[in-house]
Amino acid sequence: MGIDIEELKSKINPRLRPIIWRDSDNTLVLLDQRKLPFEETYVELRDPQSTADAIRQMIVRGAPAIGITAAYGMVLAIAHGNASTLDEALNELARARDALNAARPTAQNLFWATERMLSTASNAIHNGSAKSVRELLGVMKREAKAIFDEEFDAELRMGIYGLEKVNDGDTILTQCNAGGLATGTGIGTATAPIRVAHALGIRVSVIAPETRPWLQGARLTVYELMADGIPVTLIADTAVGYVMYRGMVNSVMVGADRILRDGHVYNKIGTFKEAVIAHELGIPFYAIAPSSTFDLRSRVEDVKIEERDPDEVRKIRGVPIAPENVPVFNPVFDVTPPKYVTALITERGIIYPPFDKNVPRVLSVR
Amino acid sequence: MGIDIEELKSKINPRLRPIIWRDSDNTLVLLDQRKLPFEETYVELRDPQSTADAIRQMIVRGAPAIGITAAYGMVLAIAHGNASTLDEALNELARARDALNAARPTAQNLFWATERMLSTASNAIHNGSAKSVRELLGVMKREAKAIFDEEFDAELRMGIYGLEKVNDGDTILTQCNAGGLATGTGIGTATAPIRVAHALGIRVSVIAPETRPWLQGARLTVYELMADGIPVTLIADTAVGYVMYRGMVNSVMVGADRILRDGHVYNKIGTFKEAVIAHELGIPFYAIAPSSTFDLRSRVEDVKIEERDPDEVRKIRGVPIAPENVPVFNPVFDVTPPKYVTALITERGIIYPPFDKNVPRVLSVR
Repeated sequence: MGIDIEELKSKINPRLRPIIWRDSDNTLVLLDQRKLPFEETYVELRDPQSTADAIRQMIVRGAPAIGITAAYGMVLAIAHGNASTLDEALNELARARDALNAARPTAQNLFWATERMLSTASNAIHNGSAKSVRELLGVMKREAKAIFDEEFDAELRMGIYGLEKVNDGDTILTQCNAGGLATGTGIGTATAPIRVAHALGIRVSVIAPETRPWLQGARLTVYELMADGIPVTLIADTAVGYVMYRGMVNSVMVGADRILRDGHVYNKIGTFKEAVIAHELGIPFYAIAPSSTFDLRSRVEDVKIEERDPDEVRKIRGVPIAPENVPVFNPVFDVTPPKYVTALITERGIIYPPFDKNVPRVLSVR
Repeated sequence: MGIDIEELKSKINPRLRPIIWRDSDNTLVLLDQRKLPFEETYVELRDPQSTADAIRQMIVRGAPAIGITAAYGMVLAIAHGNASTLDEALNELARARDALNAARPTAQNLFWATERMLSTASNAIHNGSAKSVRELLGVMKREAKAIFDEEFDAELRMGIYGLEKVNDGDTILTQCNAGGLATGTGIGTATAPIRVAHALGIRVSVIAPETRPWLQGARLTVYELMADGIPVTLIADTAVGYVMYRGMVNSVMVGADRILRDGHVYNKIGTFKEAVIAHELGIPFYAIAPSSTFDLRSRVEDVKIEERDPDEVRKIRGVPIAPENVPVFNPVFDVTPPKYVTALITERGIIYPPFDKNVPRVLSVR
């Protein structure tokens, strides 16, 4: 890759850290993302139930961020719990897992993280590496940090691979927030090549569509890039075609919620239109996501697109913008066929068409 | 055309009439479009200055609507003015013209309408058809009604021509508000074929994108179609591609602010992306506009796209949605190249490619 990941870490230091573990008093500190970009406030958590509540209330969002938060929620069960024996500690952890898992019942990353923390505890007790509750706390802290670091490193690797697609002076169009706020690390997926380029002194700027109905572009992407001095311009969703037509965009970089073996990319509503226009105008389109995003079993016919509450469209931040009884179609995601995808950028490398063949090869799976 | 325009008039009766002349007390009644869709209130006007203020305050919007309103503003100068002689009446009309023209200094339709009213008055006095101020009032009223009727008839003709492109059961994607609220007649341009089809019992439904930053789709298009029982579904601007991908759209019908001889269509920001995606997916794209919209002299390089206040993007109905200091690019219009335009529908007929040859032929100009 030509760039050493440890050296890069010394250069890249996002100002916004959505998830902070404060070791001095064993406190989990979360940036309250509900209040961005108007207030930058933090919530301090010291027990698993409050952590579960914070996840439920969307103080933290995004699959990786929820996983990391839940892992630290498990640490809190030991740090501030009442267990005096290792058996009691395991019981505390099981209760913490149940509480955390109930916070977002469809979040796979959440279940994965709590189970990993619980089985790490169990193994440490059985193999004797944790002989006291105090030692178990150390094991738990190291495991939660490992989960965070694995995510952080994977995003840096996506950034380093993606750097190949960034030229000095480029302007990159994105969509939604696939940034460090969504992943919890401060780096992000779609923003990883942008952040890595910026850290290395390569000039890069971003055009962020507001991304109705939730406005994650206007509220989050713009905010987190401004926080690190990366030039960003906000546009209305209606202007995504025109900025490409005007020659203002060198490439499109978006995240992904799911990617199929044949290269179909599921992402926030609005991604498809960017991909089609980019294709028509000869602008490269990249989806950037970790290997865990790939669904190698489903076919495009199998995946149902979630539709949400009509009031998300009828109102903006609680303010009505349309007749209250107007029928609404509110799909949250769309799907971009592989024809429009120039390449997929993962922490294991860049995947080019034909995806059917290259996705399993680069991901090293069958 | 197969459909008699007079017979059609008996069948088509939009509930919302943005501009009403009440003859019983010589009053101009305007629907206050600033308050739609939350309040349906009307403003009564009895003098030219109040009419100019109403135009300036955007109680009424859209080029044809402003022209019709200004024409009636000229009528008010005579109906409620102090002129006792025809000379005094002409002076009143000149003052009214100046006041009205100052309301929107770039609105060509406004200047055209006030000059037409003034020269009609002058001619009527000189050729003896208005021998008193009372008779002049009658001439003025007939001329203002003629301006309205010409617009109304032109829109019905666009609707009748456009009907050829509507099949029973169709769903039509539009953009912004090119409806009866924008033209002042209750019919509209992009909505004309839809309204004519609906009046004739052809089942047609509409998908209206909200159209940020001004939300004319959410506020106006949705409201005026619902008012007449035409099925309409509101979507976020991000969903325009996905509804076409899903096969939910049979054609795209939009208005136009300017059309060049070679077929370049200037219209509300967001139109270009609809056209590109429609083209890619084999969905026909029609721009519907009167012959007065055509600019046969300019080339695409000559036309500057207006950019407006960043706060229109940073806020929605006064509510902030982004950091207050974020840089914004806010173009109001975009341009759709002829490659993506299936046909242009005018009151003189449908114009197909090659536009360079067929635009002048159908419009009967050189």
